[in-house]
Amino acid sequence: MHRYRSHTCAALRKENVGEKVRISGWVHRVRDHGGVLFIDLRDHYGLTQIVIDPDSPAFKAAEAVRGEWVIRVDGEVKAREADTVNVNMPTGEIELYAQELEILSSAKELPLPVFGEPDYPEDVRLKYRFLDLRRETLHKNIVKRTQIISAMRREMGSIGFTEYTTPILTASSPEGARDFLVPSRIHEGMFYALPQAPQQYKQLLMVAGFDRYFQIAPCFRDEDPRADRLPGEFYQLDLEMSFVEQEDVWSTMEPVMRSIFEEFADGKPVTQKFRRIPYDDAIRTYGSDKPDLRNPIEMQAVTEHFAGSGFKVFANIIANNPKAEVWAIPAKTGGSRAFCDRMNSWAQGEGQPGLGYIFWRKEGDKLEGAGPIAKNIGDERTAAIAEQLGLGDGDACFFVAGDPAKFYKFAGDARTRAGEELNLVDRDRFELAWIIDFPFYEWDEDNKKIDFAHNPFSMPQGGLEAFDAQDPLTLKAYQYDLVCNGFEIASGSIRNQSPELMVKAFEKVGLSQQDVEERFGGLYRAFQYGAPPHGGMAAGIDRIVMLLVGAKNLREISLFPMNQQAQDLLMGAPSPATNAQLRELSLRVAADPKKA
Amino acid sequence: MHRYRSHTCAALRKENVGEKVRISGWVHRVRDHGGVLFIDLRDHYGLTQIVIDPDSPAFKAAEAVRGEWVIRVDGEVKAREADTVNVNMPTGEIELYAQELEILSSAKELPLPVFGEPDYPEDVRLKYRFLDLRRETLHKNIVKRTQIISAMRREMGSIGFTEYTTPILTASSPEGARDFLVPSRIHEGMFYALPQAPQQYKQLLMVAGFDRYFQIAPCFRDEDPRADRLPGEFYQLDLEMSFVEQEDVWSTMEPVMRSIFEEFADGKPVTQKFRRIPYDDAIRTYGSDKPDLRNPIEMQAVTEHFAGSGFKVFANIIANNPKAEVWAIPAKTGGSRAFCDRMNSWAQGEGQPGLGYIFWRKEGDKLEGAGPIAKNIGDERTAAIAEQLGLGDGDACFFVAGDPAKFYKFAGDARTRAGEELNLVDRDRFELAWIIDFPFYEWDEDNKKIDFAHNPFSMPQGGLEAFDAQDPLTLKAYQYDLVCNGFEIASGSIRNQSPELMVKAFEKVGLSQQDVEERFGGLYRAFQYGAPPHGGMAAGIDRIVMLLVGAKNLREISLFPMNQQAQDLLMGAPSPATNAQLRELSLRVAADPKKA
Repeated sequence: MHRYRSHTCAALRKENVGEKVRISGWVHRVRDHGGVLFIDLRDHYGLTQIVIDPDSPAFKAAEAVRGEWVIRVDGEVKAREADTVNVNMPTGEIELYAQELEILSSAKELPLPVFGEPDYPEDVRLKYRFLDLRRETLHKNIVKRTQIISAMRREMGSIGFTEYTTPILTASSPEGARDFLVPSRIHEGMFYALPQAPQQYKQLLMVAGFDRYFQIAPCFRDEDPRADRLPGEFYQLDLEMSFVEQEDVWSTMEPVMRSIFEEFADGKPVTQKFRRIPYDDAIRTYGSDKPDLRNPIEMQAVTEHFAGSGFKVFANIIANNPKAEVWAIPAKTGGSRAFCDRMNSWAQGEGQPGLGYIFWRKEGDKLEGAGPIAKNIGDERTAAIAEQLGLGDGDACFFVAGDPAKFYKFAGDARTRAGEELNLVDRDRFELAWIIDFPFYEWDEDNKKIDFAHNPFSMPQGGLEAFDAQDPLTLKAYQYDLVCNGFEIASGSIRNQSPELMVKAFEKVGLSQQDVEERFGGLYRAFQYGAPPHGGMAAGIDRIVMLLVGAKNLREISLFPMNQQAQDLLMGAPSPATNAQLRELSLRVAADPKKA
Repeated sequence: MHRYRSHTCAALRKENVGEKVRISGWVHRVRDHGGVLFIDLRDHYGLTQIVIDPDSPAFKAAEAVRGEWVIRVDGEVKAREADTVNVNMPTGEIELYAQELEILSSAKELPLPVFGEPDYPEDVRLKYRFLDLRRETLHKNIVKRTQIISAMRREMGSIGFTEYTTPILTASSPEGARDFLVPSRIHEGMFYALPQAPQQYKQLLMVAGFDRYFQIAPCFRDEDPRADRLPGEFYQLDLEMSFVEQEDVWSTMEPVMRSIFEEFADGKPVTQKFRRIPYDDAIRTYGSDKPDLRNPIEMQAVTEHFAGSGFKVFANIIANNPKAEVWAIPAKTGGSRAFCDRMNSWAQGEGQPGLGYIFWRKEGDKLEGAGPIAKNIGDERTAAIAEQLGLGDGDACFFVAGDPAKFYKFAGDARTRAGEELNLVDRDRFELAWIIDFPFYEWDEDNKKIDFAHNPFSMPQGGLEAFDAQDPLTLKAYQYDLVCNGFEIASGSIRNQSPELMVKAFEKVGLSQQDVEERFGGLYRAFQYGAPPHGGMAAGIDRIVMLLVGAKNLREISLFPMNQQAQDLLMGAPSPATNAQLRELSLRVAADPKKA
C-alpha cells in the first residue's frame, strides 16, 4: 500500500464498504461522543469521517490528536447508519473505522481558527496565511480562480490565440502609474522597471509578424494603497491581434468573455448580446463610463421643461449658461416624501446644495406631482415630465442642473443610490456591455493642458485628416471598455501604428518627437519598418474573479497578498538590504527629509 | 469584405481557384520577371505568391513596394501552371492575381535582412528584435516554445495538477544566487526581492492544504554573464505534491516529460523507461552527475590491475593513498596511436600531466596491447584489462589515477571527448534518466566547512536517527535530477518538513535556529502548524526548448532577450532613474570605488 494514502479524503463511497484503506490529511475537527472519537479528516479534495472505538489499536494515538495535526489513518470503510448519513458530503454515506493512526506532523496552538470562518484580524491572517488558506471559502475561491484562468487559456487557445511571455525586467513604461524600479548591478546608477502592462511588447510582437497574442500577464504598479487594488502585482488577460478593426476585437472577445462568465456564474444569467454604448451616451444615460446595467434607471435631459419655468433656480442656470442642462433621474416606486428627503439629505452629505425632486400620486383619478418643484413649474410641465419619463403613481424623479461635464458623476451616483435604495437592481445577474468611442484627449484642469483621455497608443478616429482639422477635445478614439455590473473589467483599442500620427498625437500633449523617441523608442522605431494595423485589449483578472466568486475583498481571491502597507507579513518583505548588497548595486539609502 | 483580409497568407488552396479574395501581410520578396511582378506575401501563418501583370490596376502601386512593407492585396485566385507548382509550400498550387493593392505601412531601409538567414551582429539583431523575429527559424522556434509550454500545461492539467501563481515581489530567497532587489517606496531603506524560484511559496502551498501544484514560473537571478543562461529571467515548470515519496514524483513526472519530448522530438527516439542512476554510480561510470547517455562509454575501476604493477607512477599512487583508484575509460574503435596521442595532448591542454593509454591490435592470432603502459604492466595484466572491459582489436583504453573525488570530472570530460571524437554518440535521440540519491552535504574546500550539496530544503535519507548517527558527508538526500543528453533538465526532492530536523540540518552548515527563523521564517513557522510530507521538482523550460528545437543559443528560443551585458537594447533598459524617482525611493547612487 502507498506510504501515505490509498484514497484521498474525498474518494470513499458506499462501493468501498468493507475495503481496508489508508488516508492522510489534516484533523479538521475531533469530537468525543461518549468515549468514541470522531475525526473529520480533511485534504485538498474533501473530508472523510473517521471513527475510533475505544478498543481500536489507534485509540491511544487518536486521543493525543488536536486540530490541524497531519495524520495517516488505516482502517476499514463501513456504511453509516441511515440516520447518520450526511447527504451534503460526497463521502457522507460512509465512515472509516480506524485501525492504525500515525501522526505525520503536529501543530502548535493555532493563532487563528481554521474550522468555521469567524472574523479575525488581517495581520494575523496574513502572517499565518498558510492557516488562513485552509479555510473552506478561501480555499474554494483560490481553486476557482485557477479554474477561471485555466478557462481563459482554453478559450483563447481554441480560437487560435497563442500565449507569448513578455519580459518582466524591462524599461519604464508609460501607462501613467509609478514604476517599480530594479537597480542594475552591472550598470552603475541604472535601473530596470517592472512592466505596468506588456503594452509595448505586445505591439512589438504584432510588428514582429506574430498574430493573435495573449498572455495571463503579471503587471506591476507602485501605487498608493487603494481599496480595489492590492499593492504590487496584479494580473491581466492581455491580448492583441493584427489586421483588425475594433469590430473584430469585439466579435472575437465577446464569446470568450460570455463563455467564461457563464461557466463560473453558478447559474446566474449572463448578457447574451453585449450592448455597444457610445461613451457620450453612457455619460448622459448613466452618469458613468462603467454603468451598472442591472440598475434600470436611465436618465434623460428635461431642460426644455425647466427653461423659462417658475422654478427660478433652474431657469436662471439655463438662461445664464448655454452649456447648462437639466437631467432627470427617474425613480420608479420612489414616490414617497420620506424617500425623496432621504435622497436629498444624502446629496447634501455629498457636498451638493440638495437634490430637487417631484413625486407623483393619484388624487382620485388625477395624477398629481408633489413637492416644491412641481408647485413652481406648474401642472402642465410636471405632467410633461411624467409623460417623457413614463412615470406614474408612486414614482419619483430627481433633477440635477448645470454644466453636465461638471455634474454627471454626481448624477450617476444619485442614479446608483436610487436604484439600490429602491431595490431596483437585480443583483443575481451579470450585465456586460461595451462602452465605445471614448474621447481621445481630455482637458487637464490641474495643468491647464490637453492630455490623453485613455491610452496614448490608441488610434484617433478619422485618421490624419480629422486629426488636423478637428478641435482635439472633440476627437474620438478607437478605444473601448468592457463593463460588468458597474465595474470596468477590460479596456482596449485599435492602436496608432503610424509613426507620423504618433508624433502628432504626442505633440498635442506637449511631447516632442525627441521625447517620443526617448520614451517609446522601441515602438516608434518599430513602426518605421512595416507595422500592421493592430488592436487588442486587456481584462482585469482579479476583478473578474471577484465578481464571479462574489468576493468583496481582493485578499479573498489572492493566494499570498501583501497588506495595504505593501508588506508581505508571511515572508517578511520588504526588508533591509545588507551593506554588501547596497555596495554591489552602487546605492546608498538616503533619508528623504520630507518623509521624516 | 473584411477591411484587411478574407484569408490568411497560408489559407488559399486549389479549391479557392476563381474566388476574389483579400490578403494582407509583409512583402517577403519582390521579383520582376520580364515586366510581371511577383510578390511573396508573408504573415504569421504562411506565404502566398502574388502576381501583378503590367496591365493590372495594382501595378503602379506594386512597383513602389519594397521588402517588409505591409500591404493589402485584392485579387483572383488562379491555379499555377503544372511546372510552377511549389510542393514545398502549402499555398504552392495557386497564385493570387492582384487587382488592387493598398500600402498599409512602408518600411525604411532595413538595418538587417529578414529574407534568408545570414549571420548578423548581435547588437543590431537585438536593437531591431522586431525584424529579427520575422526570420523564419526564429519565428518557428518561438512558436514551438509556446507549444511546448502549452503542452506542459495540458499534460499537468490532465493528471490533476492545478496552476497556482505565486508572488513576484517577495522576500530574498535562499537559492544561493544573487537576488534582484526592488526598493520599497513606502518603507524607507527596505527592499523586495524577485524570486529566484517559488520554492518556499510552493512548499507553503502544500502546508496550506493544496495539492498537486504546478506553475510555469518566472525566476530571477542576478548572475554574471554565462553562456548557458540569459541575464535576468528564466522559466521553470515548477511542481509540488503532498503526501508523496520520491517514487511518486518520478512515476508522475516521467510520463509527462516523455510525452513532451515525444510530441516535439520530430520523430527522434525518446527513452521509454528512464533509468534511475544513483549519484555515486553516475560519478563512477560517467564522471558526471549529468551524463550524456547517448555516449556508450562506461568507465570502470581497474585499480587491482595496476596495484603492485610495473607501471610505477600508478602503483605508487595506489600504495601511498588508501583512497586512490585507477579508472579506465574504454574507447572502442579508438585503437590508433594517432588518436591516443591526440587525447593525450588534449589532456595536457586541460592542465593534466597526460592521459595514459593502452590500445589493442591483432598480431596474427594474438591480441596485443600497445603503448608504454602495456609494456610496463606486462601481457597478463593488459589482457585482464581488455577482458574486464570487453575490448579487442582496434580499441583503446585511457587511465586516470588518484583520488576519484579529485579526478572524476576530468575523467568524465575525457569520456565525453573520446565518445565525440570517435563518433560513438548517437546525436539524433533523447536519452533521459533520473540521477538519484544525491549527497546531502558536501565539503566546501574554500571555506573549510560543510555546506549543502544541493537544496537545503531536502529531506536527508534515514530520518533523525541517521542524521544524528552518521558522518554528515556520507548522508544521502531524497534529492534527484532529471538529465537529458548531458544536461540537467530538472531537479527536485522530497522536502524536510520537520522543524526539528530543519534546524539540525542548518546547524551543521553553521546557521543557528535564529538564522533559520530570520531567513526562512515563513516556512519554518508553517512547519509548526501541521505540515504534510511533500516533494516535487522544477524543470528548466529554456533548456528543454533548446534541446527540442536544436538551438545552440538561448537567444534563438527567447522572445525579447537581453544581451550578455544584461541590457535590453530594444527597449533601452536599464536606464537612469530621475532624481524625483530616487528621492521617492530614498536612494542615492553612490559610485563604488572598487568599480571605478
